[in-house]
Amino acid sequence: MHPNDGFRELRRQECLRLLAKVPFGRIVYTRRALPAVLPVNFSLDADDAVLLRTAAGSELVRAIDGAVVAFEADDVDAARQSGWNVVVTGPATVVTDPAEHERLSRTGPVSWVPSVQEVFVRIEPELVTGRELIGGRTMYGVDLTA
Amino acid sequence: MHPNDGFRELRRQECLRLLAKVPFGRIVYTRRALPAVLPVNFSLDADDAVLLRTAAGSELVRAIDGAVVAFEADDVDAARQSGWNVVVTGPATVVTDPAEHERLSRTGPVSWVPSVQEVFVRIEPELVTGRELIGGRTMYGVDLTA
Repeated sequence: MHPNDGFRELRRQECLRLLAKVPFGRIVYTRRALPAVLPVNFSLDADDAVLLRTAAGSELVRAIDGAVVAFEADDVDAARQSGWNVVVTGPATVVTDPAEHERLSRTGPVSWVPSVQEVFVRIEPELVTGRELIGGRTMYGVDLTA
Repeated sequence: MHPNDGFRELRRQECLRLLAKVPFGRIVYTRRALPAVLPVNFSLDADDAVLLRTAAGSELVRAIDGAVVAFEADDVDAARQSGWNVVVTGPATVVTDPAEHERLSRTGPVSWVPSVQEVFVRIEPELVTGRELIGGRTMYGVDLTA
């Protein structure tokens, strides 16, 4: 993409600042060799890892533990055709250390749909990318690039 | 998932009805062997295929033409912890037939960020799944399943 194609690339710190403002995103992974995506609430750890909390025996946990996944969040105003999106890509791992689990029980995300047995999943922020949509078309549908 | 875990599975027709109400979603695919996700505006064709319109030479087109992809849309109210999400999974193909391209130029989605050369991409609605989040936790953080 060239600089004036309607998008602005966001720096890592901008991405993380925007991520911290939204309560949920979407985890993108592979399920039975097919692309899969699921909305989940989350929080950011002090080291910028994405933290999820979910049922211990869930299909999601089985599919993502040890795999590289993407986590996406966005905030788009369709009427103004503006907004942003951020993607964190990195390995997902279930937190098995009891002390770490205990810490996250106090400081981590709270399930919207609680289960009896829950686990925390960390997504390492190896790659953090994002872009801002700054609008390419006027309100009157004029193609600015024609 | 069992029926009262806070989610309700949506039927295909419910999913398609909800999809038709939102202006954009997220295409989920594989890029350089990594999971990738990108917000895009879209429309539904008469046969329920998801239609995207994007730059002819884009990285997105190269990555998804001929591949099975997922397309996700959702509408979640974080404060009420309620909402829905829908995922369409199927093969994506660039529309190469000139008559079909011409038809979609009139009836298909309009780019938010127009390019000089644009193509339409169809995602066949082979698998259409969705669920409604009906809330599992009260406002006071009481774990209803404990």
